[in-house]
Amino acid sequence: MIHPITGKRDFIESLRGKRASFLLCMSNTKTANIEGITQAGIPGLLHLTPTLDAEFISLGEVRSLGSIAATPKGVPTPALITRAVHLLHPFCEIELIELGLEIAPQLEHFTMHTFGITPSNAISEGASIPAAEVFEKGIQFAQELHCKGEYIILGESVPAGTTTALATALALGYDAKEKFSSSFKNTPNNIRQSVIDQALAHVNESDDLFEILSHVGDNMLIFNAGLILGLQNRDIKVVLAGGTQMACVLLIINRILQMMEGELDSSKIALCTTKWVAEDTNSDIKALLEMNDFQVNAYYADFDFSLTSHPALKLYDEGEAKEGVGAGGALMYALINGITKEKITKKVESLLK
Amino acid sequence: MIHPITGKRDFIESLRGKRASFLLCMSNTKTANIEGITQAGIPGLLHLTPTLDAEFISLGEVRSLGSIAATPKGVPTPALITRAVHLLHPFCEIELIELGLEIAPQLEHFTMHTFGITPSNAISEGASIPAAEVFEKGIQFAQELHCKGEYIILGESVPAGTTTALATALALGYDAKEKFSSSFKNTPNNIRQSVIDQALAHVNESDDLFEILSHVGDNMLIFNAGLILGLQNRDIKVVLAGGTQMACVLLIINRILQMMEGELDSSKIALCTTKWVAEDTNSDIKALLEMNDFQVNAYYADFDFSLTSHPALKLYDEGEAKEGVGAGGALMYALINGITKEKITKKVESLLK
Repeated sequence: MIHPITGKRDFIESLRGKRASFLLCMSNTKTANIEGITQAGIPGLLHLTPTLDAEFISLGEVRSLGSIAATPKGVPTPALITRAVHLLHPFCEIELIELGLEIAPQLEHFTMHTFGITPSNAISEGASIPAAEVFEKGIQFAQELHCKGEYIILGESVPAGTTTALATALALGYDAKEKFSSSFKNTPNNIRQSVIDQALAHVNESDDLFEILSHVGDNMLIFNAGLILGLQNRDIKVVLAGGTQMACVLLIINRILQMMEGELDSSKIALCTTKWVAEDTNSDIKALLEMNDFQVNAYYADFDFSLTSHPALKLYDEGEAKEGVGAGGALMYALINGITKEKITKKVESLLK
Repeated sequence: MIHPITGKRDFIESLRGKRASFLLCMSNTKTANIEGITQAGIPGLLHLTPTLDAEFISLGEVRSLGSIAATPKGVPTPALITRAVHLLHPFCEIELIELGLEIAPQLEHFTMHTFGITPSNAISEGASIPAAEVFEKGIQFAQELHCKGEYIILGESVPAGTTTALATALALGYDAKEKFSSSFKNTPNNIRQSVIDQALAHVNESDDLFEILSHVGDNMLIFNAGLILGLQNRDIKVVLAGGTQMACVLLIINRILQMMEGELDSSKIALCTTKWVAEDTNSDIKALLEMNDFQVNAYYADFDFSLTSHPALKLYDEGEAKEGVGAGGALMYALINGITKEKITKKVESLLK
């Protein structure tokens, strides 16, 4: 089952049975190198997480490191979920969007879109992103995009991305404190708060929207704001497959539209996340979505690991990891195409063997 | 699972979820009339095998004879496997390529490509194929081909085709002895060797490449060499769905390219066969593939009949039949589209009832 967070079930029901292209945005922000800021990956090698995630969802194996990314606590990457869905009910293509990686994934025969974007700095030191340029690249990509599927599921892998998203929302003047999720069950709020305070200190009162984004954002947030707006005059529906980071993309779009006095045709966009994000008591994605002037349909896929006894997977149900690599959107894709929770669970388990 | 024989998993993983057109090359060589040379069909009626295979994969019934082709031992044609896959996860079209048949299949509403090619003679008496012309027809077909699918799975049904393939490889100077498969568990090497010796005696030292092929080849081998080369400047990927016969197509291409000092863009081609061929101890497809100057990704579909108790199907696991009618490629198509071994097994069983 797919449950609405905001809006009605119509959007997602209209996609039932349709085939989707899966696009993964991969980006590094040096914010992830700050000790204790994220557990989305292997300490010291956090920059590899998007690279390994891309390899794993595409091939079922990792090439840039010996084994699949797991947190120090042993929570395996949500790429497992996305790959399991791709095995059970394949996306009609997987394409990669390279938005500043230290190490490119080792993939042949897969389309990887590159834009000459470099990894961004830690927001504590000012992200130094050419924000207007990255935004333009997102728009242009959307205008030229060739999509084989009947709609797009847009996922992301950006270690420390919830921290940059929270900083961005705060810098844009949203009352977003304690509304952003984290890969931790118990968010390390001291470290996070300190990084965010430092990030916000880089923002000047006279900064315009893109100047603010250049200090506190990450490439994925800014590029996808462009991508979504670029898709507005195309006949392609897109599901933002993620949690509060994707909600932040919408918050950025909201500010851009306010600046331009524009409106959003939200009939082409929805957000879909996991149950772990939707039910997270330490964040509030619904509140974030409701801060926009426009309404967007948002959903969560009713899937958890209650049917497994695998201890690493059980950690998801305890609140670790929660989302990423398009897991929420992938679960939606499986569920609206007749794939059961049992089948998904067994397939994820088989990938851990 | 799909396992590489040569190359990496990327090519086949990039096809996951994509829809394929299935093309079946059908041809008769009178080599099949030599007693004991093949068990791919009904003794005395071996020339009917491609006709019946085409009818069965397209319609699920045979029209040109009372029942489905089976060997004297009762091994049913691998067309069963291809048909089962088409029922479970349909190809987006099946098209027939008529390369010299005694009896045309009785099919309406299916596209059958004809080229005025006649069945070839027994290679023991000289095949008498207008090889350059058949090759040209393959090139031209590729250049004009309209493919509805996102890629092509190219199968074949040519009784005695492994014998003509072996003769061809030897005549082209490859060290191919004992590397070619056969429809028999225990290849009747005496008969085969005698036929091949007679075939090779037709080749003169002064013969050029196409003259050699005209003596020892079959229409499928030569046409498909043209087809593959003709697809080089088109944006269509093709999976050669077969075993050592398809490997021989590549060996022919290799000699043509050496003659023309040309190169192959192997990013558009892969080969996919069955586990029965890949694990056959009486042949060596990997060695054949490695004789080429170019590298091609080759795979086998990890499927066997371990889940059935049907005695006719169990013969496959004992080494009879092994491949044909695109079975290896069809199994790959099922597996990369989420169809399980259990489902395929049950569907094949149901077709035998």
